[in-house]
Amino acid sequence: MTPTTARPPALDWSIDTCTIARAMAVLGEKWTLVVLREVFNGVRRFADMQERTAIPRQVLTNRLASLVEHGVLRREPYQEPGARVRHEYRLTPKGFDLYPLLVAVKEWGDRYLADPEGPPLEMVHRECGAEVHAALQCGAGHAVTEFREVVPRPGPGAKRRH
Amino acid sequence: MTPTTARPPALDWSIDTCTIARAMAVLGEKWTLVVLREVFNGVRRFADMQERTAIPRQVLTNRLASLVEHGVLRREPYQEPGARVRHEYRLTPKGFDLYPLLVAVKEWGDRYLADPEGPPLEMVHRECGAEVHAALQCGAGHAVTEFREVVPRPGPGAKRRH
Repeated sequence: MTPTTARPPALDWSIDTCTIARAMAVLGEKWTLVVLREVFNGVRRFADMQERTAIPRQVLTNRLASLVEHGVLRREPYQEPGARVRHEYRLTPKGFDLYPLLVAVKEWGDRYLADPEGPPLEMVHRECGAEVHAALQCGAGHAVTEFREVVPRPGPGAKRRH
Repeated sequence: MTPTTARPPALDWSIDTCTIARAMAVLGEKWTLVVLREVFNGVRRFADMQERTAIPRQVLTNRLASLVEHGVLRREPYQEPGARVRHEYRLTPKGFDLYPLLVAVKEWGDRYLADPEGPPLEMVHRECGAEVHAALQCGAGHAVTEFREVVPRPGPGAKRRH
């Protein structure tokens, strides 16, 4: 039995402006990151996404609409010969900036949830062929390898709780 | 109108073993990363989490149970004087390994979703005081700053689609 711990300092601070919660309000619905994975992998069309992922039609429609609304994806018209104009989905700069997050999700999944033979996909540096990782680094260029090396502190948007 | 694009090579590959989808099956329910944020911030007790986040009681119960079941959190008994034994939630090594992912979520949120005055929390390197970031890096130590510098390739667990 551990002794009772001191009151965590985090409890003094409001979470109303928390950017993790806000990010997850955009990204945290079921299937959202899977849809983004498809687009990052060059699968940009509704029918292709649906065929490959088997996400229910209405859910896929909603997720794409939400990502467009939040400025993560944009719709681009295209036309196959003899068919009506359709749209494909492309990443905006805000969407491209999700790439480190997607790599971090993949790495954790690769480590703990892959089949015994290993992960299905590798991401390598075009220039040198070495695998790409999401690593923590500080602004002074030091590698941060342990959670314990990081200290949280209130930022400019911090608010005390009443 | 963009010309029609070639069939994306990703369509030839099965997503059955995708580790992003598997990771999001663990992490992608609403509130899950918010619960993990609390634990990383030292808020380990049910009552404290509920008071600070206002997550509905049953949802919080389910999220914590799921994270324990997936080996991300573990339950640790504690006892306040005169009260019954309760449990607090602590990160396992599998849970600590979510830290780069959480930092990546925070960074994206900070960039696009913070209030005008800035993000509520900063994470700094204990040793030097500089801010900590989730950066992409290859195994040869090169910084990867552009999505276009990364090439996907089938990994050992890749399966062709039938």
